[in-house]
Amino acid sequence: MKSYRYPAREEWNEILKRPVFDTSVLNKSVQKILLSVKTKGDKAVRKYTKQFDGVALRNSEVSAAEFDAAREIVSPELKKAIEQAVKNIRLFHQQQLSEPEIIETMPGVQCWRKMIAIEKVGLYIPGGSAPLFSTVLMLGIPAVLAGCKQLILCTPPGKEGTVNPAILVAAEIVGIKKIFKVGGVQAIAAMAFGTESIPSVSKIFGPGNQYVTAAKQLVQQYGIAIDMPAGPSEVAVLADDSCNPRYVAADLLSQAEHGADSQVLLVTTSQDALSRVQEAIDQQLNQLSRKEIATKALENSKAILVNNLDEAIDLLNEYAAEHLIISCDGADSIADRIINAGSVFIGNYSPESVGDYASGTNHTLPTNGYAKAYSGVSVDSFTRKITFQKLSSTGLQNIAETVQRMAEAEGLDAHAHAVKIRILDL
Amino acid sequence: MKSYRYPAREEWNEILKRPVFDTSVLNKSVQKILLSVKTKGDKAVRKYTKQFDGVALRNSEVSAAEFDAAREIVSPELKKAIEQAVKNIRLFHQQQLSEPEIIETMPGVQCWRKMIAIEKVGLYIPGGSAPLFSTVLMLGIPAVLAGCKQLILCTPPGKEGTVNPAILVAAEIVGIKKIFKVGGVQAIAAMAFGTESIPSVSKIFGPGNQYVTAAKQLVQQYGIAIDMPAGPSEVAVLADDSCNPRYVAADLLSQAEHGADSQVLLVTTSQDALSRVQEAIDQQLNQLSRKEIATKALENSKAILVNNLDEAIDLLNEYAAEHLIISCDGADSIADRIINAGSVFIGNYSPESVGDYASGTNHTLPTNGYAKAYSGVSVDSFTRKITFQKLSSTGLQNIAETVQRMAEAEGLDAHAHAVKIRILDL
Repeated sequence: MKSYRYPAREEWNEILKRPVFDTSVLNKSVQKILLSVKTKGDKAVRKYTKQFDGVALRNSEVSAAEFDAAREIVSPELKKAIEQAVKNIRLFHQQQLSEPEIIETMPGVQCWRKMIAIEKVGLYIPGGSAPLFSTVLMLGIPAVLAGCKQLILCTPPGKEGTVNPAILVAAEIVGIKKIFKVGGVQAIAAMAFGTESIPSVSKIFGPGNQYVTAAKQLVQQYGIAIDMPAGPSEVAVLADDSCNPRYVAADLLSQAEHGADSQVLLVTTSQDALSRVQEAIDQQLNQLSRKEIATKALENSKAILVNNLDEAIDLLNEYAAEHLIISCDGADSIADRIINAGSVFIGNYSPESVGDYASGTNHTLPTNGYAKAYSGVSVDSFTRKITFQKLSSTGLQNIAETVQRMAEAEGLDAHAHAVKIRILDL
Repeated sequence: MKSYRYPAREEWNEILKRPVFDTSVLNKSVQKILLSVKTKGDKAVRKYTKQFDGVALRNSEVSAAEFDAAREIVSPELKKAIEQAVKNIRLFHQQQLSEPEIIETMPGVQCWRKMIAIEKVGLYIPGGSAPLFSTVLMLGIPAVLAGCKQLILCTPPGKEGTVNPAILVAAEIVGIKKIFKVGGVQAIAAMAFGTESIPSVSKIFGPGNQYVTAAKQLVQQYGIAIDMPAGPSEVAVLADDSCNPRYVAADLLSQAEHGADSQVLLVTTSQDALSRVQEAIDQQLNQLSRKEIATKALENSKAILVNNLDEAIDLLNEYAAEHLIISCDGADSIADRIINAGSVFIGNYSPESVGDYASGTNHTLPTNGYAKAYSGVSVDSFTRKITFQKLSSTGLQNIAETVQRMAEAEGLDAHAHAVKIRILDL
């Protein structure tokens, strides 16, 4: 972790730069796979699955027998934990559903917005070293709550052609029935364009490696929506003299173990806290199974000593962290002043890992400063709000002059005429 | 208008194709302007304003004197109409503001979402034949309601270096103070990267020509958010025997006059309605000031006769119109079955033009079938929902086992450790 002592504001931009990989250098090779799947469908998907996942699959859909087997393998304890997480996540997301409320803007002019599920959505769950069944919950629960009619999930098969059983169990608990053992760019392509066996969707969700990220960026050009632009995961911790340095160190390391490209940021008003957190990191690092990954991530990471709390808050609002942990006295009132972050963790008993798994909030959050303009995933992400308006003849009479006047001033006569032709009949 | 009688479902895809212009062919020339503004700032903006708008401006910001002059020029009648529209739009959008609600997912585990304005936003209002001051309302009102701290507007200057006074008056009524006389790609670039005089923003809103559309697409690669992908404006009208063909014709024409690339779609269960609407179009077309544009748009347009109402609804949900007018008996219950549309207009007294200007709903809506995954602009578009969580020591104890179990199953020991290190202290 590189440390900075009282940097001037002009230096913040440089210090806060993220270790971002520009996926556009992959565009050419990714585009090739996209187009191949678009034109050749399942045949191309099978080819790339063999090439990249090292397994030949005739049928990529997970069968009932595979679900049955997964249920046998996953321990009752893990199943219980998943069920508790589902309960919390569902409780929190349920609140995001909304009913239309009619607003009469003028007598006889009724307007409302109705939350309606996106009909066809696709979830992507990466394979690799960590089987992210928690992401199945974070995407699947709001999708099911929203009422998406066609909900599919793609995840790469392992060398034996199987999917991690925890992913299948999590999907089953959540209510996802159609899972395809397809990963990487070919999965994004299949969901974007559809194949003989995999239906196309309107919006694609989920994390992935740089190829998946590039593919999600590119399919937008074909009219497919995506959850949000992606970047490496990150945490910022704001700590003062009152913090527990061992907790802060543990939080920073829990983010650092995600990947070598993760970034962690410590912002503190206390020189003492800074050095004690760094000592604690050194102590804890050796106990981690993913020590090597965390060590690499720490090389991208910064510890910043600032003059006072105001400066700390400004700096953190400038950084716009995906996860922000506030380990300070008066954490609540500091949280009130945060305007740019994905998810905020308040106080000494709110480590990021509770939000990653089970507090109830979503863990699919904007990275890379995107929190300045994007929200994390929620029920909103799986719905649209369609507006409706219904005017009575009185309503139209009440609004007619306003509309005609404005339409004429914009030079749009036919707009005015559509009102006039009705009014003349009244 | 090309008409289709009882087409088979397999033909729908082909019939419903939109006249979309692929802006990626402009990418090279647009990228050049973007990079020029990024590196040379105001100097480049001035150069392009001279080149494309034909006017040399030393200072692009609209002055207080210009606001004063505009107030003098705009008629009291138009001002009154704008004020009425503002009132309705504000009333409708106000309802979209929300207060955080704390949800205790487990005892001691408190979670909430807080709606927070995007700090820096930029609005683009095109110049050209129609001065779209109504769009100033549709973007400015939710931005101001959301509480965006830095709100700027760019619009191209006319040959005399001035802005249409209605645009300035609308901006002033809404509460937009910083307006720059900059248009086209250079405006998008200035808002994305910032110049000496124009501050950079996190999200850019507003319609524009194909160059502006391409520029908005491209600046996303630099981390700038945009309101939504763009396409030509469009309306679909669903009409049955009960419709008034003159009203339907007027509605179709009001969309057709927008631009030669607009598309209008008539879907009907009634052969009689179909022919009577077509007659009415022919009659009304001659009275329009923008007859030529409307005639061109009608060439892209379709009238489709279907077997029954169910088929009509399926077809319209497949098309996902930006604007959908329901001119049928039982329009309300039909509206309940619409799952893909931007904004829906119910019954004979709800022409699209009321929503374009003043009913209260937003007129910035998803075109080109994007309504399948995107909503129109609302207060949501100018805010993010940041999630917060705060656990008491009891809360952490209640959730600890769930989190540790899941983290270990995902192979993320440091995540489990961040909980364990705290629990051991309790």
